Amino acid sequence: MPVRDNIASSFEAQGLMKTLGAELLEAADGIAVIKAPLRKETAQQHGFGHAGLTFSIGDSAAGYAALSTLEDGAEVLTSEMKINLLAPAKGDYLLATGKVEKAGRSLIVVTARVQAVTGDARRDIALLQGTIFPLRP
Amino acid sequence: MPVRDNIASSFEAQGLMKTLGAELLEAADGIAVIKAPLRKETAQQHGFGHAGLTFSIGDSAAGYAALSTLEDGAEVLTSEMKINLLAPAKGDYLLATGKVEKAGRSLIVVTARVQAVTGDARRDIALLQGTIFPLRP
Amino acid sequence: MPVRDNIASSFEAQGLMKTLGAELLEAADGIAVIKAPLRKETAQQHGFGHAGLTFSIGDSAAGYAALSTLEDGAEVLTSEMKINLLAPAKGDYLLATGKVEKAGRSLIVVTARVQAVTGDARRDIALLQGTIFPLRP
Amino acid sequence: MPVRDNIASSFEAQGLMKTLGAELLEAADGIAVIKAPLRKETAQQHGFGHAGLTFSIGDSAAGYAALSTLEDGAEVLTSEMKINLLAPAKGDYLLATGKVEKAGRSLIVVTARVQAVTGDARRDIALLQGTIFPLRP
Repeated sequence: MPVRDNIASSFEAQGLMKTLGAELLEAADGIAVIKAPLRKETAQQHGFGHAGLTFSIGDSAAGYAALSTLEDGAEVLTSEMKINLLAPAKGDYLLATGKVEKAGRSLIVVTARVQAVTGDARRDIALLQGTIFPLRP
Repeated sequence: MPVRDNIASSFEAQGLMKTLGAELLEAADGIAVIKAPLRKETAQQHGFGHAGLTFSIGDSAAGYAALSTLEDGAEVLTSEMKINLLAPAKGDYLLATGKVEKAGRSLIVVTARVQAVTGDARRDIALLQGTIFPLRP
Repeated sequence: MPVRDNIASSFEAQGLMKTLGAELLEAADGIAVIKAPLRKETAQQHGFGHAGLTFSIGDSAAGYAALSTLEDGAEVLTSEMKINLLAPAKGDYLLATGKVEKAGRSLIVVTARVQAVTGDARRDIALLQGTIFPLRP
Repeated sequence: MPVRDNIASSFEAQGLMKTLGAELLEAADGIAVIKAPLRKETAQQHGFGHAGLTFSIGDSAAGYAALSTLEDGAEVLTSEMKINLLAPAKGDYLLATGKVEKAGRSLIVVTARVQAVTGDARRDIALLQGTIFPLRP
């Protein structure tokens, strides 16, 4: 299993991730990947994925990337996060990849890239940059 | 009815807002207010509201604030949005208030404040600042 | 003297503030105000104030607002800051007003508004929102 | 000469860049690099480079990266920019590298990385993410 137990169980305890249909594909060594379907239930008024969906999986990918660098028993909170939207969220599904840029003792700076996947093609739809606050055990 | 027809129907067409249980209470003259319940389905792993919920209603309140300043037939897209989280999302429900700060011809700069309401008390839980792109008819 | 000694001496020790011609007019109770002239030396290519000038005084006003809520001997670092530019920086001078939005133990969330002053008129030219990291003595 | 004439002359017309001692090393194909010295005149109260210096060269590198993708006669304005500071600005000099992430017709999304260089070593000190507004001729 690619995802550490405590990370997997944290993800599964998130009601919103379940509601969005999101899956945590990977979380190790400062990188995390989340996949989410594009459904009417998470769309905006034109049927594309809502910015709130894109943000939610990008933010969570960034948070789990940070958590993957911390010891067992640690937790993370988003302190702040900024998203630039690049293109409409349309395609087969979304893929968010979070990455630790700087793992400080008090604060962890992260980025994330969200892509829309259609067949073999991937298109960037959003970039995120933010700060994760670690709660050490 | 306090919300203009085209704004109300735009809001109702948003699958994600329905999934989150969100209601648009007000949208006029550059201000919009959205209310959302705090449910297990939109929580993070500790049972508090997920940052993605807070972002989604804050971003939408900002977008509808912008839309309320535009002519009938216009639409809005979020170009970028930043959120600072101030306190856990816990209480009876959340209230997001979006506000137009500068209505430019090409870009509309907005802010939003999200509060957790418990009985008569309101506590700020997040501030947002961003840019809305207007699509004029 | 309206500005506490340790805050005034911190401001005076900032080479960049001197280079920009900036003055700290006020810093108390979570609010700070900085004034800066509009000069060719701090302009962009069209002769208006550079975004870097506007950012520098907005960021510093936010930082001194935060410092004004801390005990003597404390210091502050900017963790992250976002600026939305609203209008060209032109007029007699600029005025940046920083404000503490949430004074947490570990992080202080701040906003700032930068205005261009021309005679009696003030025009908003930028909004900032960010996080200040307090270093307690 | 590595920098197109109109870009070089735009840079030279920026009073602030001259005041900061900044040089434009490169600007082509969506990438721009700016170098700036670390001097007392651009320092904060502890003698490290001021966040305003780091922001100014990061923002300008992002702007010239955007300009390098536009036709002759075009100009650019920063619409919004966010900076996360990672480490103190100390070393021999600073190097800011701006990059176009998405060149849209109406808006250009950019990132920038600022590094402190000491001898052969480079250390990331800041990440920026923002939006540039193109003014086409």
